[in-house]
Amino acid sequence: MNDSQPLSESTHIELPDVWDQLDEIVKAGESEAAINFLNALPPGEEARILAQLSLDEQQAFLKLLDGEHAAWLMETLPELQAAQLLSSLSPEQAAHIVDEMNSDEQVDLLDQLPEEQSEKILEVMNPEEAENVRFLSKYTSLCAGGLMITELLSFEESQTVDDVVSDLRQNAERYAEYNVQYIYVINHDLQLVGVLRLRDLLMAPPGKRLSSLMIPSPLCVPDSTSLQELQHFFDSHPLFGLPVVDEANVLVGVVRREDVEEAGEEQAGKTFLRFAGIMGGEELRSLPLKIRSARRLSWLSINIVLNIVAASVIAMYEDTLSSVIALAVFLPIVSDMSGCTGNQAIAVSTRELVLGVIRPRDWIYVFKKEFALGMVNGLALGLLLGIVAYIWKGNAYLGLVIGGALAANTLMAVCLGALIPMVLKGFKLDPALASGPILTTITDMCGFFLVLSFAQAFLPLLT
Amino acid sequence: MNDSQPLSESTHIELPDVWDQLDEIVKAGESEAAINFLNALPPGEEARILAQLSLDEQQAFLKLLDGEHAAWLMETLPELQAAQLLSSLSPEQAAHIVDEMNSDEQVDLLDQLPEEQSEKILEVMNPEEAENVRFLSKYTSLCAGGLMITELLSFEESQTVDDVVSDLRQNAERYAEYNVQYIYVINHDLQLVGVLRLRDLLMAPPGKRLSSLMIPSPLCVPDSTSLQELQHFFDSHPLFGLPVVDEANVLVGVVRREDVEEAGEEQAGKTFLRFAGIMGGEELRSLPLKIRSARRLSWLSINIVLNIVAASVIAMYEDTLSSVIALAVFLPIVSDMSGCTGNQAIAVSTRELVLGVIRPRDWIYVFKKEFALGMVNGLALGLLLGIVAYIWKGNAYLGLVIGGALAANTLMAVCLGALIPMVLKGFKLDPALASGPILTTITDMCGFFLVLSFAQAFLPLLT
Repeated sequence: MNDSQPLSESTHIELPDVWDQLDEIVKAGESEAAINFLNALPPGEEARILAQLSLDEQQAFLKLLDGEHAAWLMETLPELQAAQLLSSLSPEQAAHIVDEMNSDEQVDLLDQLPEEQSEKILEVMNPEEAENVRFLSKYTSLCAGGLMITELLSFEESQTVDDVVSDLRQNAERYAEYNVQYIYVINHDLQLVGVLRLRDLLMAPPGKRLSSLMIPSPLCVPDSTSLQELQHFFDSHPLFGLPVVDEANVLVGVVRREDVEEAGEEQAGKTFLRFAGIMGGEELRSLPLKIRSARRLSWLSINIVLNIVAASVIAMYEDTLSSVIALAVFLPIVSDMSGCTGNQAIAVSTRELVLGVIRPRDWIYVFKKEFALGMVNGLALGLLLGIVAYIWKGNAYLGLVIGGALAANTLMAVCLGALIPMVLKGFKLDPALASGPILTTITDMCGFFLVLSFAQAFLPLLT
Repeated sequence: MNDSQPLSESTHIELPDVWDQLDEIVKAGESEAAINFLNALPPGEEARILAQLSLDEQQAFLKLLDGEHAAWLMETLPELQAAQLLSSLSPEQAAHIVDEMNSDEQVDLLDQLPEEQSEKILEVMNPEEAENVRFLSKYTSLCAGGLMITELLSFEESQTVDDVVSDLRQNAERYAEYNVQYIYVINHDLQLVGVLRLRDLLMAPPGKRLSSLMIPSPLCVPDSTSLQELQHFFDSHPLFGLPVVDEANVLVGVVRREDVEEAGEEQAGKTFLRFAGIMGGEELRSLPLKIRSARRLSWLSINIVLNIVAASVIAMYEDTLSSVIALAVFLPIVSDMSGCTGNQAIAVSTRELVLGVIRPRDWIYVFKKEFALGMVNGLALGLLLGIVAYIWKGNAYLGLVIGGALAANTLMAVCLGALIPMVLKGFKLDPALASGPILTTITDMCGFFLVLSFAQAFLPLLT
């Protein structure tokens, strides 16, 4: 915090230099040099420089660091890579590092490991830390319980301002790592009864009891509250943190705005990758080839089967095709364009679902909106492609067949694209991963069918 | 803040009821009923219920609200819709509402309007507020200057703890709306010289001067710092806010972690939509059909032209095609699969660029990684489709032609997909919007060419 350098003045280190330097440090085995190296990395560049090292290099480097710096390194790396690095260490080495991390990061990281392995690490960790991790890891990561931190300040309602201030003074060191925004007031049964802002403490007479100073019955959420509900909450309330209670209204933690927004951002990134067919929504190029290839292939192999199914429609019309070979030129265009128009609608629905602007049961509203748009864009695209077909072969009927098929297929693709994510969401399935393949399979089949059956009907006029 | 209802207990209101209710309120023209209605909306549902109203309905409803509630309504609606609503009002009405909003939201909203219109609103706004907006709006929205708020607490270094505490007490009402995390310490020339946490004030003797209590030379950023740099900063520093200075080191505002993360999340959502071909990265179904249709069509019409260009390769091989009509079945499959594999690589590169794990100049590293993956996945997919072709027609050479073409095209699609976003980013272009069309045009052309030229070479063996 005492660095007067403005951020943007950080010089851009050339990568090969950095890695040569790192190589030397690792070869020399100098802990001090390693720590100096870490501290000298330009802010904002650490993740990039460290993430591009191979697992072996990361391991060799990590061995030179003390627990605190090793924990910092883990927190800086993308989660997937940190977990991989951790699992390459002995349980004792891993525990030593995890002990130094914050409660929510401990849980997130250990969650990435196979249960057997994380259990071994927990066994050799500081018992108090391990117990806290076990308590937190019973929650799934995308609910209030999974996002909350347990490092909070709570006092009983019968205590006075003076009690609090002297406790703050005495434990200043322990609280140094806490992000203190509010003080939570609890009763004898540990139930949350009030909340107090730090600034209100500043202005209150020392002898006053918390019960008369606090804001009573504060907003709070059950530990099962979903990430989406939390996002909506923080969108409409200018608060930094929100206390989390269990079924008995006992205060169990605090979920902070920053953690909710970080989780939201991560989710948005994962949605984007899943939408493009990356299983699990995460891939980094530093992962082993086997894992990367398998993650992509698993989605591709489903896709190729669906593609073959869709293209089998063409096989049924081989006669029509061989009579009007020009149709073969337009089949990929119709298939591709319907995929594009449908994907736009999928993206808008997925985004509106995430924003909370629509819910699955609003499908009539969405259908009406998309139907109108599908009519307009279908006519526009159909007209365009129809004219191209007409000009190319000088046959107006060919233009009519191609244009009509594309227009009809566009209308269908737009409506389907809008509704598929809502249906999947309604069945609690993941809209991002499955919507695309479902859409393109249907639109391809219909597109091929429309072009070829229209062509068959007009066959005498086309040749 | 004094609502003891846990969030998840909020009953899900049925929409038709809500809208009937709203209809009655608007018809009766009762302001009080309108405000009660707003307050009774279940938390987290406000945006959804209000965003689905038509512009006319929103306008009629807005007229019933006082400035404060109207401002709240504006902040709840998606930005695009709020701007539309605002621009439908007279400058006086609009100014009255904008006056009640926070500085960063004022700027964001007025930024969405045509300059002429926002100028008219500024002219009739509270002069002090208007001046602040003019000052803030000289910054682009995705840099520290555009993201910062100007509501902050700053004191001169010569002042004492007591001075600060009594100022806080005196102006408690004015500061009530501030998110006070830190106190900023400035010198005579308004330059930032230190920072002080609220909790440190709590523990300090009253007579102490700020200069001896503050953390000197605090971290700060120039007002031009980019969103991405800010994201990296907050990722690696557990701070709530970061002071922003101009070229003369004068303190001009504070950029808060929450605003950076909100902006990051919004960017991620827009990237996702642009990736799917929604121009501008934003579409809500409540927008007029004309705008929605035009935004989607502008991208689609570029795409269809590119598609026609790519398909013209097929037209050059009409003879080959009519000899082996089965090829027409495989052309859409090869085109579609190469699009899929390439898009995966695009998504991973786009994501890694956003995460800061790679930079445009790391292209050799990325190319090596993708080449290896392209070999593996190309062989796997080529083998699969080749076997299907062989089984279908009982001709091993057809399998070889199709499988070989898909394998080669997959390798190319993967490498291209990985590099295109990096090249675009290197030229400061938007990778999300343009990568897809560029990729599929090239891979379609190459895919068609590979299948048909291989087929032509093996023609005697295929028939």
